[in-house]
Amino acid sequence: MAYYYVAEPVRVGGSVRFSVEESRHMLRSRRHRLGDRVQAVDGRGTGYELELVRIAEDRVEGQVLRAGPGQGEPRVRVAFAPGVLKGDHLAEVVGAVTQLGVTEVLPFRSARTVGRFGPGRVERLRKVALEAMKCSHRSVWPVVRDPVDIDELVPSCRDFELALVAWEEEKELTFERALTGNPASVLVVVGPEGGLEQAEAEAFRRAGARVCSLGPRPLRAELAGTVAVSALMYALGELSPGAQFPSGKEV
Amino acid sequence: MAYYYVAEPVRVGGSVRFSVEESRHMLRSRRHRLGDRVQAVDGRGTGYELELVRIAEDRVEGQVLRAGPGQGEPRVRVAFAPGVLKGDHLAEVVGAVTQLGVTEVLPFRSARTVGRFGPGRVERLRKVALEAMKCSHRSVWPVVRDPVDIDELVPSCRDFELALVAWEEEKELTFERALTGNPASVLVVVGPEGGLEQAEAEAFRRAGARVCSLGPRPLRAELAGTVAVSALMYALGELSPGAQFPSGKEV
Repeated sequence: MAYYYVAEPVRVGGSVRFSVEESRHMLRSRRHRLGDRVQAVDGRGTGYELELVRIAEDRVEGQVLRAGPGQGEPRVRVAFAPGVLKGDHLAEVVGAVTQLGVTEVLPFRSARTVGRFGPGRVERLRKVALEAMKCSHRSVWPVVRDPVDIDELVPSCRDFELALVAWEEEKELTFERALTGNPASVLVVVGPEGGLEQAEAEAFRRAGARVCSLGPRPLRAELAGTVAVSALMYALGELSPGAQFPSGKEV
Repeated sequence: MAYYYVAEPVRVGGSVRFSVEESRHMLRSRRHRLGDRVQAVDGRGTGYELELVRIAEDRVEGQVLRAGPGQGEPRVRVAFAPGVLKGDHLAEVVGAVTQLGVTEVLPFRSARTVGRFGPGRVERLRKVALEAMKCSHRSVWPVVRDPVDIDELVPSCRDFELALVAWEEEKELTFERALTGNPASVLVVVGPEGGLEQAEAEAFRRAGARVCSLGPRPLRAELAGTVAVSALMYALGELSPGAQFPSGKEV
């Protein structure tokens, strides 16, 4: 069962009024009733257990029974920078990497970008990330940034202990060997449909990133990000079961 | 650039007539001309280099310059058994796991299956697998079986050195620890949207499978298979660059 979203932090004993959309979902799809206990998150790392205490005019209110650090978050901060893709592929990828535990999405345009990033697009991606956060029992709503040009993205590599750039033309350095040490923060970069140009890969390299291969089978751009983040989470031990929320530790 | 598909094996010096569909694709999307050299695979493990020698009535003919074992294939035989999913999600997953190197897809129905597997569905999945094989420079067209009931799938675990069943309710055994040894063949099983029932998980266990967790963040059914196969291929060293086709070894 997915968690619900509360837009504002709240204390134990306090009450929460769910949004119209969330309330409808609770009442119509999940058929909740007064007195039901539900789990919710605030998207900033806190999880709640609530009792539904009021239903009026299609809005549901809950009282917080317990609050504590949400437990679906990875120990390592992982950001994902996808090239802007064609069609709705970016939404697909954002949904996938959010379920896997990414906390930031940094879309970028590069020389071979053909997909268009129209108005309203980033809002859609944020919504996809919100839904994926709830489904995957996470408590942090990943930040989805407005797309930037690749020149603006490259220096961001330095904000992470490790930056991995998947590049189809790299034939030496494997993803596995590029992923060394015990980094506290990792940035994963995957280019658009046409891939990165040589000069773009070089720019990442100069900024300290490790440009590496995802293997001998070329992956479609919309799959490569999911595969890279899956492999990374596996390697970091993040595909192992952890303690489940709620931890009982109150805040 | 993707490979083309030749339906019949052919010897060096022999000629190949591409299908109408493949010919159109070559002429219209790729704008090939007489004399162009292209790569092709027969879906049975052999790769070819051809020269286009004739274009007539929308059909392209090529002469085989070289033939050899295709090199996009993993060293380990990996099969994937997905629960039948809603909508077109199974096509998405089949495309993804084919790009990752799976050689067999064994869809199954279980107690909580809600997706319907109508007529023509398996043909569609086979086509998706064919396209994914070509894009990912593989030479083996994965076999997509007709869906079976779970009782029929369970004994298949014994056909593999290792069978891994991803189950959301398993909280002890991690995917990582379940994946031991150096198996020559692995079956990965992922249930439908509602997951597997306890009795179903037990049946897999009795058949020798390892029922394991993909971590604390529940993954949607359509993502879980891709994540499991990505992690497996990473762990098997299959996300490392290998030799590229053509190897030059002639058959």
